[in-house]
Amino acid sequence: MTVLVADVGGTNTRVALASAGQLVHLARFANDAYGSFAEVLTAYARGRDLPGLRGVCVAVAGPVANGRAELTNRNWHFDTAELAAPLPGQGDVAARLINDLVALGHALPGLTAAQLDVIRAGAVQPSNDQALVAGLGTGFNTCLLKGGAVVEAELGHASLPLAIAEELRAQLGDAAGGFRTNECLFSGRGLSRLHAILSGQDRRGQDILADYAIGEDPQAAATVTLTARLLGLFARELVFQYLPFRGIHFAGGAARGILGSAARAEFLSAFEADGRFADHLDRVPVRLIADDAAALSGAARLMEECA
Amino acid sequence: MTVLVADVGGTNTRVALASAGQLVHLARFANDAYGSFAEVLTAYARGRDLPGLRGVCVAVAGPVANGRAELTNRNWHFDTAELAAPLPGQGDVAARLINDLVALGHALPGLTAAQLDVIRAGAVQPSNDQALVAGLGTGFNTCLLKGGAVVEAELGHASLPLAIAEELRAQLGDAAGGFRTNECLFSGRGLSRLHAILSGQDRRGQDILADYAIGEDPQAAATVTLTARLLGLFARELVFQYLPFRGIHFAGGAARGILGSAARAEFLSAFEADGRFADHLDRVPVRLIADDAAALSGAARLMEECA
Repeated sequence: MTVLVADVGGTNTRVALASAGQLVHLARFANDAYGSFAEVLTAYARGRDLPGLRGVCVAVAGPVANGRAELTNRNWHFDTAELAAPLPGQGDVAARLINDLVALGHALPGLTAAQLDVIRAGAVQPSNDQALVAGLGTGFNTCLLKGGAVVEAELGHASLPLAIAEELRAQLGDAAGGFRTNECLFSGRGLSRLHAILSGQDRRGQDILADYAIGEDPQAAATVTLTARLLGLFARELVFQYLPFRGIHFAGGAARGILGSAARAEFLSAFEADGRFADHLDRVPVRLIADDAAALSGAARLMEECA
Repeated sequence: MTVLVADVGGTNTRVALASAGQLVHLARFANDAYGSFAEVLTAYARGRDLPGLRGVCVAVAGPVANGRAELTNRNWHFDTAELAAPLPGQGDVAARLINDLVALGHALPGLTAAQLDVIRAGAVQPSNDQALVAGLGTGFNTCLLKGGAVVEAELGHASLPLAIAEELRAQLGDAAGGFRTNECLFSGRGLSRLHAILSGQDRRGQDILADYAIGEDPQAAATVTLTARLLGLFARELVFQYLPFRGIHFAGGAARGILGSAARAEFLSAFEADGRFADHLDRVPVRLIADDAAALSGAARLMEECA
């Protein structure tokens, strides 16, 4: 049987069909071109001969409660009761809403080596079976896994840790005061805001990352390498907050842009800097989820588990 | 069958026998009078007719890995292979080491209303089944529960959140720079350090709390009410870090001294202050674990579960 899965970020929505653990008919939509998720789903269904679905599972970049969700960085609302309505002939199918990082948490146990980029291996020691996913996209959030439990959080809205705020103040002076929460800094919007302070330019995070990858824009390089260094300090904090001895897994477009590039050397030197509790930090593997459809796989796995 | 359980904090060690869910022969030892945990256990066994034990479980205020642990705030070492050796005739019994907050996590599902003091009820809404225990004793740490999973952390060593660091700077000026991690502030030692800055007096945290409870020491009142307010701001951060819609549960001697007193009004007004995500904060119940033997119950439950 087939389920429809979607992953709604702040910038893009991905939709696919999932059948027997495989994703097919994957499509990506730029949210700016649509007024609501229902419009995206209508566009996906148009001209497609959908099979009879067993269910719909939508992962949303925002808090989910009581069968409802809001997108943190866009005025879109979600309700399980109406989720499948735009799909012709499928309006009554079982629908489920989850947080997008929770979807990545469900995906993690099924990811293959080809979908993961090892940033550091970590010391070989018995694990506490705790793994973390940290998503840097339009926004920021984390999800912890322990055994079969998938733990939700809203870490993007937590205050920036003092160690990162102080390093930022050393670099930016009073302009650092504009960065108050984790999401303010560790997101596509954070890259854009930091770049504006460092360079005076008004650019989107994804454009800064693209120019950095080409390698001929020293201002993009300054923004991305500073963010990579701050992210290395931040990953140290994640170790104490969640003790993820089975690994920190970065995900999302901004994480791939920062850590999938030469800037990962800055990340690693900050993460591995000497200090107290070096043995804790030494144990933690760090990986990058290279497959940007991973949240869809997680949504599909969740529907299988609940079948 | 009977197990021996112990809870080793930075200041005190509690030891008891547990049988059929009941703790008996509970004894408390001031660590300063002993050179090691083995000496404490020898003292407990002396003059007592121990039954044949099924196991020993020791909860330690520090990280546990590979069957070994260290006490964070005292130079004591633990090894499961040697744990039961001081007990006459029981040296070969199965022994287990766990973190003390993990022990409280195991205790939480079994606590009765009489062992809990409700600080705020929280809005009645479906829970995500996530509960947090935050222990303020000689040191600081947290433990998250999700379903049956008990998640370990070392949150005491994480950087103080910026929102708390800024409030502290507004109150103390540059002296706030001495508080860098959560444990620096939210612990018995933190109370002592804050009191030294505010009053110029060198006093132990437990003495400051005792004098505050009597109600005739305005300097103790200043230290405790400021800590309660900062703890309320900090609890807001815990909501984003762990989304504990099944409740934040404070534990430990310092937490009981602060939140078991009139200072809880300061805590609540800071926790409930308006701001973004008020609906998240509104949902979270806050309780105080009033029974200081709760970690022993958790250790006993863990041994039962693993029997």
